[in-house]
Amino acid sequence: MATLKTEIRSGVYYDSAKLMSLQRSLAELPGILDAGVVMGTDSNKELLAHIGLDTPEVRATKPDDLAIVVKAENEKAALEALEKVEGLLAARKASSDQAYQPRSLESAVDALPDAEWVIISVAGRYATAVTREALRLGKHVHLFSDNVSLDNEIALKKEAREYGLLVMGPDCGTAMVDGYGLAFANKIRKGPIGIVAAAGTGLQQVSTRIHQLGSGITFGIGTGGRDLKAEVGAITFLMALDVLTRDPDTKVIVLTSKPPSPKVAEEVLKVARKAGKPVVVNFIARPVTTLRDGNLFFATGLDDAARLAVELANNPPKLTGDADLPIEKFTPQQKYLRGLFSGGTLAYEAQHILYGYVPRVLANSPINKEFQLPDAFVSQEHCIVDLGEDEFTVGRLHPMMDNELRIRRLYEEAKDPEVAVIFLDVVIGYGSHPDPASEIAPAIAKCIADAKKDGRHLEVVCVACGTDEDPQNLNNQIAQLKAAGAMVDTSNEVICRYVGRTLRALAERDEPKAKTVGKPVDLEGLKKPLAAINVGLESFSENLKDQGAPYVQVDWKPPAGGNEKLIDILQKMKPRRK
Amino acid sequence: MATLKTEIRSGVYYDSAKLMSLQRSLAELPGILDAGVVMGTDSNKELLAHIGLDTPEVRATKPDDLAIVVKAENEKAALEALEKVEGLLAARKASSDQAYQPRSLESAVDALPDAEWVIISVAGRYATAVTREALRLGKHVHLFSDNVSLDNEIALKKEAREYGLLVMGPDCGTAMVDGYGLAFANKIRKGPIGIVAAAGTGLQQVSTRIHQLGSGITFGIGTGGRDLKAEVGAITFLMALDVLTRDPDTKVIVLTSKPPSPKVAEEVLKVARKAGKPVVVNFIARPVTTLRDGNLFFATGLDDAARLAVELANNPPKLTGDADLPIEKFTPQQKYLRGLFSGGTLAYEAQHILYGYVPRVLANSPINKEFQLPDAFVSQEHCIVDLGEDEFTVGRLHPMMDNELRIRRLYEEAKDPEVAVIFLDVVIGYGSHPDPASEIAPAIAKCIADAKKDGRHLEVVCVACGTDEDPQNLNNQIAQLKAAGAMVDTSNEVICRYVGRTLRALAERDEPKAKTVGKPVDLEGLKKPLAAINVGLESFSENLKDQGAPYVQVDWKPPAGGNEKLIDILQKMKPRRK
Repeated sequence: MATLKTEIRSGVYYDSAKLMSLQRSLAELPGILDAGVVMGTDSNKELLAHIGLDTPEVRATKPDDLAIVVKAENEKAALEALEKVEGLLAARKASSDQAYQPRSLESAVDALPDAEWVIISVAGRYATAVTREALRLGKHVHLFSDNVSLDNEIALKKEAREYGLLVMGPDCGTAMVDGYGLAFANKIRKGPIGIVAAAGTGLQQVSTRIHQLGSGITFGIGTGGRDLKAEVGAITFLMALDVLTRDPDTKVIVLTSKPPSPKVAEEVLKVARKAGKPVVVNFIARPVTTLRDGNLFFATGLDDAARLAVELANNPPKLTGDADLPIEKFTPQQKYLRGLFSGGTLAYEAQHILYGYVPRVLANSPINKEFQLPDAFVSQEHCIVDLGEDEFTVGRLHPMMDNELRIRRLYEEAKDPEVAVIFLDVVIGYGSHPDPASEIAPAIAKCIADAKKDGRHLEVVCVACGTDEDPQNLNNQIAQLKAAGAMVDTSNEVICRYVGRTLRALAERDEPKAKTVGKPVDLEGLKKPLAAINVGLESFSENLKDQGAPYVQVDWKPPAGGNEKLIDILQKMKPRRK
Repeated sequence: MATLKTEIRSGVYYDSAKLMSLQRSLAELPGILDAGVVMGTDSNKELLAHIGLDTPEVRATKPDDLAIVVKAENEKAALEALEKVEGLLAARKASSDQAYQPRSLESAVDALPDAEWVIISVAGRYATAVTREALRLGKHVHLFSDNVSLDNEIALKKEAREYGLLVMGPDCGTAMVDGYGLAFANKIRKGPIGIVAAAGTGLQQVSTRIHQLGSGITFGIGTGGRDLKAEVGAITFLMALDVLTRDPDTKVIVLTSKPPSPKVAEEVLKVARKAGKPVVVNFIARPVTTLRDGNLFFATGLDDAARLAVELANNPPKLTGDADLPIEKFTPQQKYLRGLFSGGTLAYEAQHILYGYVPRVLANSPINKEFQLPDAFVSQEHCIVDLGEDEFTVGRLHPMMDNELRIRRLYEEAKDPEVAVIFLDVVIGYGSHPDPASEIAPAIAKCIADAKKDGRHLEVVCVACGTDEDPQNLNNQIAQLKAAGAMVDTSNEVICRYVGRTLRALAERDEPKAKTVGKPVDLEGLKKPLAAINVGLESFSENLKDQGAPYVQVDWKPPAGGNEKLIDILQKMKPRRK
């Protein structure tokens, strides 16, 4: 019958590679059926229980304790295995050929002053202190460690921003800096695409697909999967986006994230719209409402993002920006949209599309019930009124047959000094008014003229829905509306997006200029040949060696015997260097 | 100073065209500044108040009362105008040249037995009774009237379904039947595209854009904007989809709707997936998570739907259906997915994509918090476990570096007789295990073999993330995994969609066969040259005349003096004809 034996060691520190290597060595010893070597956290204890390596001693461990369990054919084999533990732990990894391993980050920096990066993969509870030390030594940090608290993440990132340094992480698996991979990273061709990812394997999936599609990347900057949470506010993400925006070698930017805070996602996109180059966006679980918004291109998945980026890099799109919008013609008071619709579906589509540009569009028949216009007869803010709704049509003709009510309302809206844009649909065909433009166009012309007398530019836009074979003739209707001064298109979607961009630009005109926070990252420094200091998993040093990058592995042990309070106090006593 | 005069008439009925014409005639009389002629509903009273035509008599009206208000330069002009009301109301429309107008629907049917359609635009409170009568006479109904209650809509549609008749409406603006337009409809070229629309101007926008893009339509079937509400359950929409599915002239189907009930939308899409032809979908405000799912093509707007439909009609896509799925190989017990991931973002993307195929996917790190897997160490239902999450990695190596934990879990899942699909990611590159497939592939092979011995087919799928230049070599990893019997792709999205389709097909295999409800619509009848009976707005008869379609205008008045209860009793006494 199998027997279980346990050994507990308190207050020791070994990195996880060492523990895993010990576990494997024990499991391969004669007479041993299975072995577990873990720190005594709750989930590790649950795991051991789950695989039948549960003992009373294991159950009593604390997170600081190392639990070593062997399951053996008999007691003798178990005891013999445990006797070998000391020797196995002491064995130095043969592959490590770095003659001198500094014991501190400071001496490592002295040994390799050109290093711009520190890679940190020590246990989560020590990672904050090591990161802070690296930042104060003036280094960017790739923080691979997980189990770092959100509060610590925020504090570290805020401090780094002041110094113009990147904290990629915590729990950041992957980064690629100008041809070199840090931690988990693939060998990707150099090329014209830069990636920012709050998504470790997201970055790997996008970059590998880009490589497979024949293109390549400049930078792949990981931020840790929580960077777009509301609490963190995309600190690293925005710094990285700024780097790629400034980098002349980056022709296309890809942004990807684990499910983001919707509000933070919109803030990031607002910045991305000003990048002046194509930006492909795949924020997981953010609904796609359009495939393109100016320089932003929306993907349905990571693979689709890679495909789009390569296409855009190969065939650069024409980016016109907002130069076509009449923003400077409006008075400072003008800001609102009034939509006066006869078609219910067109009114719904307008709301749906405009939600993508401005946060609130009221309506008498709203998609989002929060945006109910309190009184359909009185406009407020941005609003869309469907005059074909039941409230307007009891014992009255539908507004497609009779323009009277809509024209009355048009005059009202046009007088409002806060109104910038009026949006009408003109729907022709059998059953509709025999010549709606003959009534609507003169009213539009009068509204525009009256506003002009009053010193205002009134933008009137119309979707004209019909065909050249309709009794009213579409082209004739369009000509009348255009002659009156309206912008006209046959696609509701086209008009809605034009209106959306206008309203967004008006809102941004009225916003206070954002203060520049922190210091910009030094782009030139990032583009120097990579050199890095590694604290933690030795395999990350081996990666650097394989890629021909200078590195120093720190022979790190928790200071102050692992006492976290004491570590904190010691750190506060150190001044910032560089 | 202007003066207001009011006349109230109780218990009278005029259609809204008549009222509007009276209002216009009054407003044009000498000395008259404005006029209002409306039924005394709350919203009409509010409207009159809003435009300054508010009097104590108007405020006292009830919905059945006709309120006539004139605003005149002086009292004399006002009184003279009101004296003309009787004469203006009596005037017969000159344009109507139909010698004989039957007074009842029954006599109209006798006069034009070939009519397949009845168009109804009487006031909402009478529309239910007229519709029911039309159905019992064996006619499809285009129900233009609005202000019909949801309960009445449901009752009418259920009855119609029993007879195999369409009720297009209420509040259905538009329909196009084999080249003819009913009510508000554009003149659209005949062509290969059929449209179903719970969206009146949606149908007009899509059909006009199709025409403008050079293509044309077979049918444009409106259903009324509430048909995809949960209460109605898409009764007419599904009948119309069935018609277009059977119609050999319809090569591409477009489905559009005002914001639908999400559940009903999914039910409609489930049916649409079996159409055997391309179906373009634009349900307003339903998020697009993919641009294509088999024969379904998702559009971002009405215009985009038209563009897609024309493209698909011009270049028919290859539809392979689900023939590539190994559904028949599974035992009846097998139904679940178990995803064992090392990459967090890949696990998130898998959840996000799979939500589009099956209603519930549990996870230890769920996007949708309702889908939290209670214990990360114990799988349930469909679930996705990210073994790189903090709970698995305290003091342990990341699963990209060490496969042990994942392989243990793989063996567990493979033994579960309810598991059909196991989904793994294999992520290579610097930092990862030097040859993960060398450990994972043999485990996969053993799982598949063990399941086979047990009489089960185990489908193992892998996304392999890496490049040909990675130290492990991507192609070598893929070859090992394939040799072990796994399906492998380098795109997570591709694998996720394959898994999604498999899970959906397994779920549908287990569902009871849906009973056929009602009677199918007679397609041949719909394709006969159009003839129709019109009850209500005379302009709809004029449309039919303009299009050369035989029609009969009914000289309709509310029966039983407009007493709705009595109308209901009278109707219950009439038997169904035909």
